[in-house]
Amino acid sequence: MLTVEEARERVLAGFTPLEAEEAPLTEALGRVLAEDALAQESSPPFANSAMDGYALRSADTQGASAQAPVRLRLVGEVPAGSVYAGVAQPGEAIRILTGAPLPDGADAALQQELTEVADGWVTIRQPVAAGTNIRHVGEDVRPGMLLARAGAELGPAEIALLASLGVSPVHVRRRPRVAILATGDELAPLGQPLRPGQIYNSNTPYLIAAVTRAGAEPVALGIAPDRAEELRAMLTQAQGYDLILTSGGVSVGDYDLVKQILSEQGAVEFWRVRMRPGKPLAFGFLGQTPLLGLPGNPVSAAVTFELFGRPAIRRMLGAAQVERPVVTVTLEGAEQRRTDRRQFVRVRLASRAGQLVARTTGAQDSHLISSLQGATALLIVPEGEGVIRSGETAQALLLNDALPWADEW
Amino acid sequence: MLTVEEARERVLAGFTPLEAEEAPLTEALGRVLAEDALAQESSPPFANSAMDGYALRSADTQGASAQAPVRLRLVGEVPAGSVYAGVAQPGEAIRILTGAPLPDGADAALQQELTEVADGWVTIRQPVAAGTNIRHVGEDVRPGMLLARAGAELGPAEIALLASLGVSPVHVRRRPRVAILATGDELAPLGQPLRPGQIYNSNTPYLIAAVTRAGAEPVALGIAPDRAEELRAMLTQAQGYDLILTSGGVSVGDYDLVKQILSEQGAVEFWRVRMRPGKPLAFGFLGQTPLLGLPGNPVSAAVTFELFGRPAIRRMLGAAQVERPVVTVTLEGAEQRRTDRRQFVRVRLASRAGQLVARTTGAQDSHLISSLQGATALLIVPEGEGVIRSGETAQALLLNDALPWADEW
Repeated sequence: MLTVEEARERVLAGFTPLEAEEAPLTEALGRVLAEDALAQESSPPFANSAMDGYALRSADTQGASAQAPVRLRLVGEVPAGSVYAGVAQPGEAIRILTGAPLPDGADAALQQELTEVADGWVTIRQPVAAGTNIRHVGEDVRPGMLLARAGAELGPAEIALLASLGVSPVHVRRRPRVAILATGDELAPLGQPLRPGQIYNSNTPYLIAAVTRAGAEPVALGIAPDRAEELRAMLTQAQGYDLILTSGGVSVGDYDLVKQILSEQGAVEFWRVRMRPGKPLAFGFLGQTPLLGLPGNPVSAAVTFELFGRPAIRRMLGAAQVERPVVTVTLEGAEQRRTDRRQFVRVRLASRAGQLVARTTGAQDSHLISSLQGATALLIVPEGEGVIRSGETAQALLLNDALPWADEW
Repeated sequence: MLTVEEARERVLAGFTPLEAEEAPLTEALGRVLAEDALAQESSPPFANSAMDGYALRSADTQGASAQAPVRLRLVGEVPAGSVYAGVAQPGEAIRILTGAPLPDGADAALQQELTEVADGWVTIRQPVAAGTNIRHVGEDVRPGMLLARAGAELGPAEIALLASLGVSPVHVRRRPRVAILATGDELAPLGQPLRPGQIYNSNTPYLIAAVTRAGAEPVALGIAPDRAEELRAMLTQAQGYDLILTSGGVSVGDYDLVKQILSEQGAVEFWRVRMRPGKPLAFGFLGQTPLLGLPGNPVSAAVTFELFGRPAIRRMLGAAQVERPVVTVTLEGAEQRRTDRRQFVRVRLASRAGQLVARTTGAQDSHLISSLQGATALLIVPEGEGVIRSGETAQALLLNDALPWADEW
């Protein structure tokens, strides 16, 4: 039996980042950058006022006080989006609005609340230091600054930053197209009444959602029956995708045809991985197309997708981080017994007085989908002997990217 | 000046959940349920085998041992998806595959590895308890069980659970259509070179992304110039959306036309909210259409969207939780000085030995978009005096929903 690490390493070795393509920045939410985004310009691109007020030469205001105010001649106005045509001369003030470029010659802006204006003169009753209320060129971003690294996923904040520098389109990795095929005569599609002996196919709906969340494009190919010719035809149709995900049919049963057909047709290996849930797993190539054969049990399919399928997709996306973060948590509730297989226990995390605590979501048998719901992490119960007791710490694999890895900032 | 709570309460009072609509379950990722989803059926819908092996009557195996094995007559087979036509009689065994319905009369399934089969007989060398390797009817879900509450957002796990019960289509809230209008003569759209005095409009790209992530449909209406007629026309065009988001033009400047036009046309209030960033804010109705006027500074726009805009959208979606979770964190790094305004400091959270720690992302001026990037939470520095020092705890508003509220499981 392979360890989880061995299996994951072999899977990841089968994938490289897909080609880059251009996307308009406003349509790039969730996409992964194919190259470092460097600033070409400064932001702000010009010195500008942080306030509505009066641009002036600070030297003019030295010695100004309530007793001995300074009067500056109001010679013009510069609204945001405009440029003052002249140069501020000694003794002059220019009306300036927030965000408007600081006129040449001026070096400060005094907010309007601190001035009086009458008959074309601005009265100043205090000295104004150079730079007051000025946002300097490049204060936010300087040319050459790294805005976002290759491999970064674009969220709203990254998009705002790139937009402020006018970076559009962006170079992102093509989204992998992932074919999803469920197998098994017992499976009925949604929207069709169950015949006796049938259950609904929940793996395809799950994988459509999980593949989408991973950043790829799912294409559901339906349900393959336990008949070799039909399964063969459906797998042939699936070639040309960036990844084929099957569920079911990879165990040792008489009807585990996925295993049988792949053995005939592709360079596919069948593994037993030292983990629970999810022991049986297939991985290899059908022609040029990588295929990951997940177990049929819904929870096993979900956990193996998370541990092997999602990293494969993230590798194709060129994501900096292909795996989810692992964090330290304190177990609360029933003790967890270690076994010879690594266990991934569905837990819900919470923060209690700043401490991350984990509780299981219920019974953990691999056909119990109800305990998948609400899980925000998988508690890792390492191989070995003994138990993890309530109040003890353990590692947990997050099912989201909300926290970075423990020692990464 | 209003407190953040007062402003948020007034905003939320302006919204109610939108109408429900049907969506196929496989297209419902991220949608919010409009009503409780209750199980109509059991899952599993029938008792079935957890293993490939032999269905039998446990009573037949009492007293079986290596020395005195029991031999059962192999009378048939039941693959997954089929139903055994007869009834298991005393002394009989039926070949059964994982997931296949347990034949009537049988009450256990013995895995094939523990049996020997030859010449139509199955040899059993140990007693088998009733229920062995049987997944019982309703073990995962019973009829009437709450699968997901009204207000729940459908993720992959919820979709898997609903799919396993055949629940499709689902009743979800219509996605709010949100019009986004940036204002200001200084703004240039992406893809156009900057003229002197111009900066790029980053608020619209930010809001498109953030509105999408909040579960709504953004519609960008472009940039309104600082001319009253054009702004009036664009706002008229925006009526009919579920929400209008503007950025800029709500302060006290001469060119703050949004404020001026709304005052003429709508029941719109202008507030100064006791917070930093984001002091100026407008809220009200333009005809029947709610309008939230965000400040123009990119960081102020982002933070006020998060504090007021996103909750409004979540209220329209009928989400159980309209606000983001607040958790306790330990500050690491520069101390944070309290002022008369509540401050929302961009921080990055990490888990260190199970403890949530927060570091600021850099300088916090409201035009510095670079420090928005990488922020996973907003540290809340309450109004008042004194400082929060490195190593002290504080509250932080998560910018994602990865953790539940502190005392909620």
